[in-house]
Amino acid sequence: MTIRVAVVTELRGWMGLDLNKAPFQIPGVYFQKIIPQAPSFAVGSSAISNLREMVDGAEIVIGDPPLIGPHWYNMPPSVKWIQSTWAGVDHLCKKFLTQSKPSPHFTFTRLGSGFGVPMAEYTLGQIIAMERHFHQYTGDQAEKKWVWRERDYGGYRMLGDLTVGILGVGVIGQTIAKYCKSLGMTVCGLVRKEIPVDQRSPVIDQYYLRHSLTNLLQRCDYICNVLPSTDATRNLLSDNLLSSCKPKARFINTGRGDVISDESLLEALRQGWIDYAVLDVCNTEPLPRDSPLWEHPRVTITPHIAAISTPSTIMETFKENLELYRQGKELKYQVDWTQGY
Amino acid sequence: MTIRVAVVTELRGWMGLDLNKAPFQIPGVYFQKIIPQAPSFAVGSSAISNLREMVDGAEIVIGDPPLIGPHWYNMPPSVKWIQSTWAGVDHLCKKFLTQSKPSPHFTFTRLGSGFGVPMAEYTLGQIIAMERHFHQYTGDQAEKKWVWRERDYGGYRMLGDLTVGILGVGVIGQTIAKYCKSLGMTVCGLVRKEIPVDQRSPVIDQYYLRHSLTNLLQRCDYICNVLPSTDATRNLLSDNLLSSCKPKARFINTGRGDVISDESLLEALRQGWIDYAVLDVCNTEPLPRDSPLWEHPRVTITPHIAAISTPSTIMETFKENLELYRQGKELKYQVDWTQGY
Repeated sequence: MTIRVAVVTELRGWMGLDLNKAPFQIPGVYFQKIIPQAPSFAVGSSAISNLREMVDGAEIVIGDPPLIGPHWYNMPPSVKWIQSTWAGVDHLCKKFLTQSKPSPHFTFTRLGSGFGVPMAEYTLGQIIAMERHFHQYTGDQAEKKWVWRERDYGGYRMLGDLTVGILGVGVIGQTIAKYCKSLGMTVCGLVRKEIPVDQRSPVIDQYYLRHSLTNLLQRCDYICNVLPSTDATRNLLSDNLLSSCKPKARFINTGRGDVISDESLLEALRQGWIDYAVLDVCNTEPLPRDSPLWEHPRVTITPHIAAISTPSTIMETFKENLELYRQGKELKYQVDWTQGY
Repeated sequence: MTIRVAVVTELRGWMGLDLNKAPFQIPGVYFQKIIPQAPSFAVGSSAISNLREMVDGAEIVIGDPPLIGPHWYNMPPSVKWIQSTWAGVDHLCKKFLTQSKPSPHFTFTRLGSGFGVPMAEYTLGQIIAMERHFHQYTGDQAEKKWVWRERDYGGYRMLGDLTVGILGVGVIGQTIAKYCKSLGMTVCGLVRKEIPVDQRSPVIDQYYLRHSLTNLLQRCDYICNVLPSTDATRNLLSDNLLSSCKPKARFINTGRGDVISDESLLEALRQGWIDYAVLDVCNTEPLPRDSPLWEHPRVTITPHIAAISTPSTIMETFKENLELYRQGKELKYQVDWTQGY
């Protein structure tokens, strides 16, 4: 029996792909692509009005939250499982799941794997870029200046001299921890609840609970946020929380922008609580042109690319779960709607 | 018996240090600093005219090649060992050692350790910066542009997808190899002579000899040169050698600038034999203001900082060798003047 899978997406990387051919094809699976008539490539601005009719008969849907969301409570009964092309579900929750019954008749899974490595490499790259003054040297090159930025010729810090605090050490955070640890860094991890001794990771030197977050901040040269956006994480670092940071601490946000308000972040930079911020995620995306963050000399902006949903990332998670689905087992990466991820 | 060590340097990081105090002091050793009257911090432009008198009585000299060089053949007999503050000896060879007797009555050692880790971190940082478009995003930020640079939204390459070729896999090259390998890259190493099977490194997937250099080039996404400047390495990549490179290959030079002439490098960029060049070393340093490399859109320049001589780097090598010296054993990192490193 062939399983029909509707792929509802405007992710540009998928446009030219025939998923029924190598390297994507899966025996016993037929993929049907459903693409907006005029894909906008801007979150939430495309729509497929007759989606219910188009996916009717498909057992599984792989889809972008902004395209699936409007039809969430109107999916045909044939649909047993929806695989999101995104890792985060905050967009879904905020825009579409206002009702008290978040999950209708189908099983919903988010993109649970494949994001750790790109995020770890991005984070490591940004840390080295800051430690080794890559941005300043880019500026110096523009002025044809050959001058050491290494303070007083005294040198630079090696990764082995640095302590990184990772806010959120789930699958992604643990991969970042593994990369940092393997290059000699000391790693602190923020967790929601106590981790039993036998489940602790060898790549995390010390765990901190939320109530001791300031202790983590006091200790770390880099604070890397990978937390999802939930009621418990929004504004976690807002107000004067960053005043606890170690002098010259740097902040890298690849999780969600709303872990700190723009006002609080700008104040932390102004007060010198943190030395620098690398923001791959923002409170509003795209970052509005009038945001003072764009021109701040101690802020680096990238457009939410630390880890992106590529066809291979998505297919990796999908194939992993398809195996379980076919065996009638419980799927991985199902969302706990009470926690919001 | 206290050993007197004269430290002849204008490295700025040493200016404020008292080497006879922690963390530098060594029991049984007295350090005497000798600094030019007006340190220039520019290679070869300072001098100490009465150096012979000043170091007379010292058994060991730790010194910068440009300050030591002019007095090379006029060192007092008390001096038994000179420890260079630099790794390279090409400056000494070119400027001062014109005679056929390169080494007078003293033992000479170069800076042999402590450069691997900073160079490995620099190299890794530059590779990630290129793969993840950090430079382009810096430009986009200046224009307040929030646009994905990931081609067609199809994604990016992970380090695990990449093959790096390291030209010169001595102590430094092997450390770079270790870092690259630990993050999943495939590593090729160029060596001068066949490495016996039992001495091969587990972090180098394949060794190449000079006569098969083009095979290495054909295979690698990144070519990292860490070779010293010797008669055998000068212009190794000049002329049309880089035409063998894999399409879109990138070149990172942290060894010596003269491994390729500026003309050949510019031609390789023009012809598209290589996609990008990161140059931490140049044929003339500082890079002259009229060099077209400064403004080339596919060239990154840093001012020879991939690994710098810090007090702790130098003292690490020195202490390692001092132990051997006191035991009357042969010192490490002595220069083979016939090979030039």
